[in-house]
Amino acid sequence: MKLTIVKIGGNIINDSNALISFLKDFSKIKGSKILIHGGGRKATEMANKLGLKPKMVDGRRITDKANLEVVTMVYAGLLNKNIVARLQENNCNAIGLSGADANTISSHKRIVKDIDYGFAGDVDAVSSNVIKILVDNDITPVFCAITHDKKGQLLNTNADTIASEIASAMCDVFDVELIYCFEKKGVLADTNDDDSVIERIDSRSYLQLKEKGIIAEGMLPKIDNCFYALQNGVAKVVIGLPEIIKNKHLKQTTLVL
Amino acid sequence: MKLTIVKIGGNIINDSNALISFLKDFSKIKGSKILIHGGGRKATEMANKLGLKPKMVDGRRITDKANLEVVTMVYAGLLNKNIVARLQENNCNAIGLSGADANTISSHKRIVKDIDYGFAGDVDAVSSNVIKILVDNDITPVFCAITHDKKGQLLNTNADTIASEIASAMCDVFDVELIYCFEKKGVLADTNDDDSVIERIDSRSYLQLKEKGIIAEGMLPKIDNCFYALQNGVAKVVIGLPEIIKNKHLKQTTLVL
Repeated sequence: MKLTIVKIGGNIINDSNALISFLKDFSKIKGSKILIHGGGRKATEMANKLGLKPKMVDGRRITDKANLEVVTMVYAGLLNKNIVARLQENNCNAIGLSGADANTISSHKRIVKDIDYGFAGDVDAVSSNVIKILVDNDITPVFCAITHDKKGQLLNTNADTIASEIASAMCDVFDVELIYCFEKKGVLADTNDDDSVIERIDSRSYLQLKEKGIIAEGMLPKIDNCFYALQNGVAKVVIGLPEIIKNKHLKQTTLVL
Repeated sequence: MKLTIVKIGGNIINDSNALISFLKDFSKIKGSKILIHGGGRKATEMANKLGLKPKMVDGRRITDKANLEVVTMVYAGLLNKNIVARLQENNCNAIGLSGADANTISSHKRIVKDIDYGFAGDVDAVSSNVIKILVDNDITPVFCAITHDKKGQLLNTNADTIASEIASAMCDVFDVELIYCFEKKGVLADTNDDDSVIERIDSRSYLQLKEKGIIAEGMLPKIDNCFYALQNGVAKVVIGLPEIIKNKHLKQTTLVL
């Protein structure tokens, strides 16, 4: 049976009209589906309002205790529940989850090497049994990027990684397609040319693209997540604009082993 | 099959040690169980920090758009997910839910008569099918007091009412015991004497207690919720301190039809 797993990031979440339109399209995806959403600007706005200064190192948020409270409120509360309510309006029977819920995603606090990321979680395991029960009952899980360490501690976790881990865990039973939506039409050969989409990347060409510096920086962990999913048996992984979920003919990047 | 439904309010939520201790006890309840939690001080604190002024009329919070955001963040995010993570630590496989999740509780925006309560929801229906699937799979639902109108709008809803509605919806299949935990040992005959617990209230004595003004104000809707549940087939309803979940011999008020 087919299972479509879609990850959306800040670019859609920050634009409420784009989000509403996306959720309408997402609701129309036939068959079983799962949504994973990132955070967006709202957590930073909230932290600012509360007088907190978000610390960033190498583009990653350092999650101290106060900022963990903020992301828990914003990701698991405000964003997740509004997304769920909107999907319900569109007759998609969504259920919002963090990794703590039904112990779906357990993680450990990132080990301190050079940088102390604070309450950042690295995924240990996805318990797919409950996710499968939900999906089998026509319920659509909607995950925010908060996990737990099974010792009572919530942890802020990368949403791309969560998508890849869930996809990997579900593909023993389902024929999984993993779709990463972001602000570009796909992986670009030239970051200054939005139309320079590399339509197909395999393990070999990925190595070359890295060596040449064509794929670099923030795209590296994203694509590593894609290959991780493929290596674990995910049937198809694509990267592109949110619109690719309704129009498969749009330009996009397809990744293969 | 037995199902224990426990509602906790602000008094436990505001005291993190009391909450941790309660959740440990709750985890030990044998058989199927559901937890419903209220809000507590944290939402007011957060609203104050954000420069919002919570409006109260007759002890009820008026939920404008900004305050709805706050309660959604605090109830469905911060409190709900921390409670779930803590229950997971205690080997209770909890899943946190708002009424929007899996459309478990639908409501409508309270109709304006004398007071406009803003985004306050009055419950229309509990969809017990998904709750039953969860409970049948040894998962413990943990509800916050946020519902939805099925048109994409989240609504702030009374937690006592949610507990009563869920209990009523579940009692066609389960033998339901509903436990309201609050800051007193039970319903008091004399509000100045914490030991003056009325141990048993039936429909007839409730009328008399109301007429005499012994039960008044904030206790009235609480007890109305209890009788609503009993009238709908809930087997047992009790009110008392949080400790009654582990020690059935403690003083408490039992309500019967």
